[in-house]
Amino acid sequence: MIGWEDVYKVVVAMAPLYFALILGFGSVRWWHIFTPEQCGAINRFVCFFTLPLFTFEFTAHVDPFEWNYRFIAADAISKLIIVVVLAFWAKCSSKGSYSWSITSFSLCTLTNSLVVGVPLMKAMYGPMAVDLVVQSSVVQAIIWLTMLLFVLEFRRTGLNISLGSSHDTRVQSVEQGGKDLEGMNESTLQASASYYYWSLMKSVWLKLGMNPNSYAVFIGIAWAFIANRWHIEFPSIMEGSVLIMSKAGTGTAMFSMGIFMALQEKFVACGTSLTIIGMILRFIAGPAAMAIGCIAVGLHDDVLRVAIIQAALPQSITSFIFAKEYGLHPEVLSTAVVFGMIVSLPVLIAYYAVLEFVH
Amino acid sequence: MIGWEDVYKVVVAMAPLYFALILGFGSVRWWHIFTPEQCGAINRFVCFFTLPLFTFEFTAHVDPFEWNYRFIAADAISKLIIVVVLAFWAKCSSKGSYSWSITSFSLCTLTNSLVVGVPLMKAMYGPMAVDLVVQSSVVQAIIWLTMLLFVLEFRRTGLNISLGSSHDTRVQSVEQGGKDLEGMNESTLQASASYYYWSLMKSVWLKLGMNPNSYAVFIGIAWAFIANRWHIEFPSIMEGSVLIMSKAGTGTAMFSMGIFMALQEKFVACGTSLTIIGMILRFIAGPAAMAIGCIAVGLHDDVLRVAIIQAALPQSITSFIFAKEYGLHPEVLSTAVVFGMIVSLPVLIAYYAVLEFVH
Repeated sequence: MIGWEDVYKVVVAMAPLYFALILGFGSVRWWHIFTPEQCGAINRFVCFFTLPLFTFEFTAHVDPFEWNYRFIAADAISKLIIVVVLAFWAKCSSKGSYSWSITSFSLCTLTNSLVVGVPLMKAMYGPMAVDLVVQSSVVQAIIWLTMLLFVLEFRRTGLNISLGSSHDTRVQSVEQGGKDLEGMNESTLQASASYYYWSLMKSVWLKLGMNPNSYAVFIGIAWAFIANRWHIEFPSIMEGSVLIMSKAGTGTAMFSMGIFMALQEKFVACGTSLTIIGMILRFIAGPAAMAIGCIAVGLHDDVLRVAIIQAALPQSITSFIFAKEYGLHPEVLSTAVVFGMIVSLPVLIAYYAVLEFVH
Repeated sequence: MIGWEDVYKVVVAMAPLYFALILGFGSVRWWHIFTPEQCGAINRFVCFFTLPLFTFEFTAHVDPFEWNYRFIAADAISKLIIVVVLAFWAKCSSKGSYSWSITSFSLCTLTNSLVVGVPLMKAMYGPMAVDLVVQSSVVQAIIWLTMLLFVLEFRRTGLNISLGSSHDTRVQSVEQGGKDLEGMNESTLQASASYYYWSLMKSVWLKLGMNPNSYAVFIGIAWAFIANRWHIEFPSIMEGSVLIMSKAGTGTAMFSMGIFMALQEKFVACGTSLTIIGMILRFIAGPAAMAIGCIAVGLHDDVLRVAIIQAALPQSITSFIFAKEYGLHPEVLSTAVVFGMIVSLPVLIAYYAVLEFVH
């Protein structure tokens, strides 16, 4: 059973995050310390300096040879379930659409794993849980965010999911046109499909290349492989240099989120019903899919609990940034980030208490 | 004897500070991440949030009942020596002036004790030295910065150091005017002197009241007294809230100093000869006065070494901010801050090595 002292421990771990959030909010709304342009500076400071070094610090210190690959598999299965359900919904329901499927995928799967997850998991289940949450953050950054970027670029270039069927149509028309031209036209089509693919990938890599956090993850994981393969340690002079900025990561990231909240006209930017749907996807559908994935690979006890709770963390800020850049329901994701952060504490504590009864 | 490994330990402790400094410098000069207005935001973020909480964190955790009062006395004596020498120079030398005495006092005595001092002292002499440097930072914030503000206000209100003599002159003229008016005029004069004093003090307190770092020191030391008198501990939820921002203190403060450097047109803003004088006052005169103070109260061994080295820390940034506000040689103090920070590492290591031979 979870006692009051366990709940208090979690509150103690989370309260500082809210404190920094409120300072950031107050600095704009109540004390008018920053002008709107200046708010951008804090955001850039976090994006370019503190957060990448914070991410690097965690990524570089998890041994990839000791990763829990069953946990990663459970995570992948849960994402696959969500993708299948959303694809089915987009194809078969009259309300289904490719755009809403992308947004729903974001809402179900992408979490603020490091900034919120690390202190929370540490308070709940100790260092083992921190390792797991870092692993899932690395996978999220390398695989799921890249995939999200890919589908967003795909949508933007005007191609739709039925590329295959239009391809068939064109091939048919070519066939009708004349058999002698068939070979040439097929290779033209292949070339243009291949061109599409490469231009898409180029856009995706460019976007990733402009995101300092991606660098942090890639360099961090590369270093983690090298360091653990040949048992090299980071020279203490570099360790200290990373730490001086990474220690500022949590505080400045939450402060910046507070500023972001203060700049929104209202907490709930997208209407009540969409907010409720967003919260259900984030705090119920995501963890539920994760639970199915965990059971499928046979996870149990604390690893199972950690897996489910980390799937119920507040919405990833990066997913909002992407949504804004691609103009795809940014108000829904902003609400998920802002409102989700506010309601997450009781939700996560509820999960923590309930999961004690699961074995 | 100091070995290479000791020197390396000091370099390891200081390198992160320079790393953050260079990031701040590069963000403006090389990568153009911030516009000039945005640079102000980082500065305000440090001034209002990270640095006050950083100061509070240290101030609140040093037991005032365990302070080394001989060290404080040595510090006071060293300041007194400097004040006497400067007053003598201002009065007797043809080149002496009240304004330059104030600036020289700043240069000789006011150090960046917490941000640079704490990691440096920890690497050199361990936790005992950190305690001492925090004590001297508290005294500096409460007594010496207040005194500096006082003399700066005094200068600004147009009064000069020879108030006493003009008072005498006026009293004489009153006496010449008529004996029956004497009593009344004397009380008028006393009232006006008293008025001057109170309006001065009001300005000083207003300035302190607008400085978040002053609040941090006053509240911190008040808490330290209460906590150590009645053995109360900070509730962990508040401790964490302070820590989340205070951990960002060192990194953001050095980053902000780097931005400040980048915004200067040149590192040496005040000409070579003034720079050399500034460096001599900061790195030789200040520590020399401290050494005399220490010998006077009989300090020896590590406490003596810590006292001298902490007097040779780089220039306090606050002293530059005051100089700028009162228009009193800001270019000299900016050079002392910027150039002093750059040259301080070899100077401090030299002191560290030489002081090993002192017993």
